[in-house]
Amino acid sequence: MTAYDDLMLFQRETEALSQVAGRLGWDQETMMPDGAAPQRAEEHGAMANILHARRVDPRVGDWLAKAEAVDDVAAANLRHIRRSFERTTKVPARLAAELAQTTSLAHRVWAKARAAEDVAAFLPMLQKVLDLRREEAAAIAGNTDPYDALLDDYEPGATGASLSAMFAALRPRLVALREAVLDQPQPAPLQGQFDEAGQLALSQKLAQAFGYNLDNGRIDKAVHPFSAGSGLDVRITTRTNPADPFNCFYSTIHEVGHAAYEQGIDHAHLLTPLGAGVSMGVHESQSRIYENQLGRSRAFTGWLYGQMRDQFGDFGVADEDAFYACVNRVTDGFIRTEADELQYNLHVLLRFDLERALISGDLAVSDLEAAWNDRFVADFGFAVDKPSNGVLQDVHWSEGLFGYFPTYTLGNVYAGCLHQALRSALPDLDDDLARGDTSRATGWLRANLQQYGGLRTPVETITHAAGIVPQEAPLLDYLEAKFSAIYGI
Amino acid sequence: MTAYDDLMLFQRETEALSQVAGRLGWDQETMMPDGAAPQRAEEHGAMANILHARRVDPRVGDWLAKAEAVDDVAAANLRHIRRSFERTTKVPARLAAELAQTTSLAHRVWAKARAAEDVAAFLPMLQKVLDLRREEAAAIAGNTDPYDALLDDYEPGATGASLSAMFAALRPRLVALREAVLDQPQPAPLQGQFDEAGQLALSQKLAQAFGYNLDNGRIDKAVHPFSAGSGLDVRITTRTNPADPFNCFYSTIHEVGHAAYEQGIDHAHLLTPLGAGVSMGVHESQSRIYENQLGRSRAFTGWLYGQMRDQFGDFGVADEDAFYACVNRVTDGFIRTEADELQYNLHVLLRFDLERALISGDLAVSDLEAAWNDRFVADFGFAVDKPSNGVLQDVHWSEGLFGYFPTYTLGNVYAGCLHQALRSALPDLDDDLARGDTSRATGWLRANLQQYGGLRTPVETITHAAGIVPQEAPLLDYLEAKFSAIYGI
Repeated sequence: MTAYDDLMLFQRETEALSQVAGRLGWDQETMMPDGAAPQRAEEHGAMANILHARRVDPRVGDWLAKAEAVDDVAAANLRHIRRSFERTTKVPARLAAELAQTTSLAHRVWAKARAAEDVAAFLPMLQKVLDLRREEAAAIAGNTDPYDALLDDYEPGATGASLSAMFAALRPRLVALREAVLDQPQPAPLQGQFDEAGQLALSQKLAQAFGYNLDNGRIDKAVHPFSAGSGLDVRITTRTNPADPFNCFYSTIHEVGHAAYEQGIDHAHLLTPLGAGVSMGVHESQSRIYENQLGRSRAFTGWLYGQMRDQFGDFGVADEDAFYACVNRVTDGFIRTEADELQYNLHVLLRFDLERALISGDLAVSDLEAAWNDRFVADFGFAVDKPSNGVLQDVHWSEGLFGYFPTYTLGNVYAGCLHQALRSALPDLDDDLARGDTSRATGWLRANLQQYGGLRTPVETITHAAGIVPQEAPLLDYLEAKFSAIYGI
Repeated sequence: MTAYDDLMLFQRETEALSQVAGRLGWDQETMMPDGAAPQRAEEHGAMANILHARRVDPRVGDWLAKAEAVDDVAAANLRHIRRSFERTTKVPARLAAELAQTTSLAHRVWAKARAAEDVAAFLPMLQKVLDLRREEAAAIAGNTDPYDALLDDYEPGATGASLSAMFAALRPRLVALREAVLDQPQPAPLQGQFDEAGQLALSQKLAQAFGYNLDNGRIDKAVHPFSAGSGLDVRITTRTNPADPFNCFYSTIHEVGHAAYEQGIDHAHLLTPLGAGVSMGVHESQSRIYENQLGRSRAFTGWLYGQMRDQFGDFGVADEDAFYACVNRVTDGFIRTEADELQYNLHVLLRFDLERALISGDLAVSDLEAAWNDRFVADFGFAVDKPSNGVLQDVHWSEGLFGYFPTYTLGNVYAGCLHQALRSALPDLDDDLARGDTSRATGWLRANLQQYGGLRTPVETITHAAGIVPQEAPLLDYLEAKFSAIYGI
């Protein structure tokens, strides 16, 4: 046994335990009886302690010092393990424990404050979470930008500066497109009620159409859709709303995108650092290209229109073109998670700028709500009516997830690059999509991106698959072409 | 912090991790996609390693040496932890790992051999499991009987000699009763088909009638019914067979008995050694008294008859008395798990005698099948037709569970004692049961037994609740009275 072998054996067990901890989270959102919550908190805490102890185990440091990479896979494994070990050991155990406890408490405070529309009730806790995260960021960052240290946890290699440049490139064309679109008459919204059983049946059909493998997964209902797990057990959830079947269908397709990435990774990487999606941004590129560039395309929605008529009968949309416009309606709205493909990134940009200012100290927590509301009017042209539609709408900051938001838009930018390459490789793809056949598209993504898992860095992963370094133009070109056509601009 | 406090803090985290590992088992039997099995084996292995390392952690020994009990609860906690620590540390790590691996492999070999009716294919693996268990038993037992060391894992304090005496007291009266009953004409069996949805709906009603708390539990389907978890999250499973709704209903009531015990333990003991059922035998006493003495009583079956007619319409059983006889039919059969209340203990006795002889070395693995078949003819009067109806029918030995079988009968004996005390405390209980109201019965069990969890030893637990030391007569009296009445002997 070499030091590398010893390290990988230890790491494999850590990865297995991490899967167990993740499945505990899945269970909590899908199966757990309500009264089990206090016990579950202790179970989660115990698993978190075990995982933390393994991640800072001094033996890992010893093995890393001695281990030698014999090939690309070994080099990538060592890179991931070293990065995690160095990050984790920089954070004092006292701070890690305090962060875990505080964010767990803050989540409940946030939920209560949101329900009561009471920002003031949340701010002291937010201040505490922010202080702890800033302390953590400073411990990791040394002399570099603390925001980068936080970001690096979700998107290794990305920096506040690089994302700022990305948003600067996106913003003017997105704002202009948004204004042009909103000047046009709106397509009619979907009307009527759609029974739950029908939504779930079609949702399952969509999941399988997009290549979700139920032999290594399952679909359940949850309040907030998510995908959980890596390797041979990758589960997704969806939700239903009688008035809004698109929410169910596109949540499912989105989560299938995440799950297909995990399911698509070469099984040779099972329970190793390469056996999971490489970053949040690359993960989001998969969920977004499945959901938007493929799932909301004219060709695929044409097929979906027929499926919905088969499932629900005539639901008051005249034809495929009207259905396509209906699926891709652009309307004013407060909520990021309900935003259309075009406006979504503006919601993210707002959060990115505010959270960077919070971390740098340029924005005080006490000024956050005003800053949010001012920025919202400036970007969207109308005022926030209540905190649950504004600064209290997202769970992220209560959980201390500063640096997470921009990965959503990064995923969209990556998806734009991948989509351009995909269409170039498969010029007649729409013929497939019009039959509900995504297999060549998902096969291309699997072959060019998904199978590699964490073998390359995020930027290398996209560059390898798309044939270009990540850049904003393909997403912007795609959005402008799509919405100009729909809105006749 | 005293040494006791430190110990209990460590122990609490171990208990929480043990709950997580248990829930992983639940998930495997109810929710896990088939293709996840290889990954799940590694997840289970990782959790088992973590738990084993904590159980033999030298700090536990240090704390135990210093800890002082300030009250009964502390004394009981220390007793449980000391017992587990002493047992576990006596077994070399190499042997523990080999046992875990071998029994995991043996399970599959057994399942394959059973499907192929091929005893020879199983014997080499059984020999290996037996050898390892004998080695383990010798390591724990020192100069005492190795079988007692195995038994002690399931039923602390019980010995092969004490169980042998118990069976010697049971056997003649059970054999005589069985022969008398089988001389009589048989009640008609249940006929017809009973839809699954109806079975599951009534099964849920039965679970709630017996006090199962769905706020701290849930009911799912599984191939083999079981109960899983302690404290605030105690789940049960059931199964359906269109031709045999009794299997569904009485499996559910049986598992509710196990679950009610766990749910009924004082929450002050949550995630401590006292917060789970004290032994297999006491656990089985709860499942059996729920299932048999209460669930198969004339009064309760009268209510169930009405419920079944409400659910399924006229199903061809004329009246409550005919239904009672039908529920309690005694017929020839090979399979322990399908045996009636009367013959069940004879199946257990056969296994107890054979496994004691295997452990002592008086019976060779190569002679096991012949010994089983000879004994079966002697006890049941007809010959085993194939191994899956004989020596290969049970999973236990493949998993190395030598010493487990007798706890089933011990549970029946305990249930007999408890039932006698319960009827004496609540002489008009049948009036409740005839209305499907078990609340006073289950309340009595909770108040006198369940709430205490592991506070007392198994024998003390039964003695405290029943007011007599455990003895066979109440069970035998009950069985003779019940079946003599049904069969008109």
